[in-house]
Amino acid sequence: MPKENTAPTMKDVAREAGVALGTVSKVVNGLPVGDSYRVRVEEAIRKLNYQVNSYAQGLKANKTYTVALLIPNTVDPFYAALTYHINIALLKRKYRMLLCATDFDPRQEQEYISMAQHNKVDGIIGLTYNPGLVVEENTPFIAIDRSMGPGIPCVACDNFAGGQLAAEKLADLGCKNVAFLRTGSALVNEPNKRKAGFETGCLTRGLSYEMKILDDADSFDEFEAFLADHIINGKLTFDGIFCVTDRLAYLILKVLRKLHQRVPEDVQLIGFDGIQSFGDIDYHCSTIVQPVPEIAEMCVELLLRENMLVKPPLVCLPVTYAYGGTTREKSEE
Amino acid sequence: MPKENTAPTMKDVAREAGVALGTVSKVVNGLPVGDSYRVRVEEAIRKLNYQVNSYAQGLKANKTYTVALLIPNTVDPFYAALTYHINIALLKRKYRMLLCATDFDPRQEQEYISMAQHNKVDGIIGLTYNPGLVVEENTPFIAIDRSMGPGIPCVACDNFAGGQLAAEKLADLGCKNVAFLRTGSALVNEPNKRKAGFETGCLTRGLSYEMKILDDADSFDEFEAFLADHIINGKLTFDGIFCVTDRLAYLILKVLRKLHQRVPEDVQLIGFDGIQSFGDIDYHCSTIVQPVPEIAEMCVELLLRENMLVKPPLVCLPVTYAYGGTTREKSEE
Repeated sequence: MPKENTAPTMKDVAREAGVALGTVSKVVNGLPVGDSYRVRVEEAIRKLNYQVNSYAQGLKANKTYTVALLIPNTVDPFYAALTYHINIALLKRKYRMLLCATDFDPRQEQEYISMAQHNKVDGIIGLTYNPGLVVEENTPFIAIDRSMGPGIPCVACDNFAGGQLAAEKLADLGCKNVAFLRTGSALVNEPNKRKAGFETGCLTRGLSYEMKILDDADSFDEFEAFLADHIINGKLTFDGIFCVTDRLAYLILKVLRKLHQRVPEDVQLIGFDGIQSFGDIDYHCSTIVQPVPEIAEMCVELLLRENMLVKPPLVCLPVTYAYGGTTREKSEE
Repeated sequence: MPKENTAPTMKDVAREAGVALGTVSKVVNGLPVGDSYRVRVEEAIRKLNYQVNSYAQGLKANKTYTVALLIPNTVDPFYAALTYHINIALLKRKYRMLLCATDFDPRQEQEYISMAQHNKVDGIIGLTYNPGLVVEENTPFIAIDRSMGPGIPCVACDNFAGGQLAAEKLADLGCKNVAFLRTGSALVNEPNKRKAGFETGCLTRGLSYEMKILDDADSFDEFEAFLADHIINGKLTFDGIFCVTDRLAYLILKVLRKLHQRVPEDVQLIGFDGIQSFGDIDYHCSTIVQPVPEIAEMCVELLLRENMLVKPPLVCLPVTYAYGGTTREKSEE
């Protein structure tokens, strides 16, 4: 069954539409052409089921209409939501998306960056915690959550404001003595600003606070020891806890149950990210919600917008608070 | 900063390795060549950071080393896990993966199938519930969970065995009177066999059972009414419930709480899929676990294996049971 031979060419489209070959080329490449011509060409394209050969087009016009996404995995729900919304934002613009789940493997990441430098993809959107990753200035790369160097825009939620909002919420809900718990990368990154934002919020609202910060390498058990050390006569001295992610909040919730502390009656808990069970049912905890669809749109917009004279080095998008059962609702105060 | 001009060519590799151009071509295309030659060519490729131009190669050899994945979204955790494992299985084989989150939009699906038919991708792996989707025989397409017609292999977990296993587990755990609850597509598909498997298991083990099956269009409230109708003197007449997915089990768990039924003391609950909170922490309910990494490997293997004279029309992979808090553990019986 021959396949390639039966595929209509640009010439067939020109013949069908009764226009010059150059007119078809202009329509296909999105260049200006009279409306009546465009309509005729588009009709002929539909009728013949003509397929633009983007690979050949890519070689000629140096454009592949393909963008690669580098992301550690799609199993973590935050990464899964980012992947989905970036995919939708690209498909909406008629771009294809190559997915590369890196599993934090630096070789994969560098290989895709090399592809972008050799014009095999038009650009890359990447969330990476690889400290050795080299992205040359002006590589078409948009970084999420971590600055990759000069000339490479970084998009993130407003992590500082999110930390501050968590402190303010806990203060509004009657907390006096709070804790901040964090695990995560020691690399300079945007999510690390959650800590500074939380401190600022505590200071502004007169909350006393303690910090417990573990590296990824440290044992999670240290959080349990830290919390157990703050129990006096069976009662936790903290009345509010801010965890750096919903994932950590979920694990801390189990620790608090084990230590016979009731949430939210004895201690209120706020996480960060806005993860919902099964993707859309309900929040695992009260949380600072990242604007994932907006982050995705911004990444795609910054990557594909051409002829930008000045690229923004850092774009921070607003977060919101959502109730998820681990704080006292206003009406219950 | 010139980019394309500085990229090394196959000729540069031949010169560096001190071999003929044809030898480099053979190595790059995976054709047999003497070991000492291959080593020299590979060293030269590494040294020069030579990039095989797969798009040009694709036009020549009719191969793009690119596979498209059609999946409704990556927000649902089952789809997210499939996407991740298929991506890993392809990258391991040096294939790239185009992701197309279809949001159940038939136009997107048909467009990617058209790409496969015009050799713009080497093949497609697709999970689709679009009844009108036309996949011609011998299109390089592997279907997940739903047969797409003759000549198109379908890969799924052993849904029948999974339903049977759920009934057997409930019997082992002391249940006598059980229910099966289902929402989902009315299309013929593999997951629908969970019902027949469950019935078979109930009959074999002498369990009395009732079925409540809703279409996607029906209101979820009907499950609540169904369960409420089976409460006599405050006690549910069912001592075991099998839900067609973990997602449904999660929602039913809330309904049971609302109806003051304790899980697992009054009624035991088993779901299907093996979804874990945050992708890897713990199961939402006791569940029949789909072998997602194995499904992914099988899809990729069937798609990329060349010269298969007979393609298997349906491959079913074994499921397992996992305890997730909504059944009584053996030791507690």
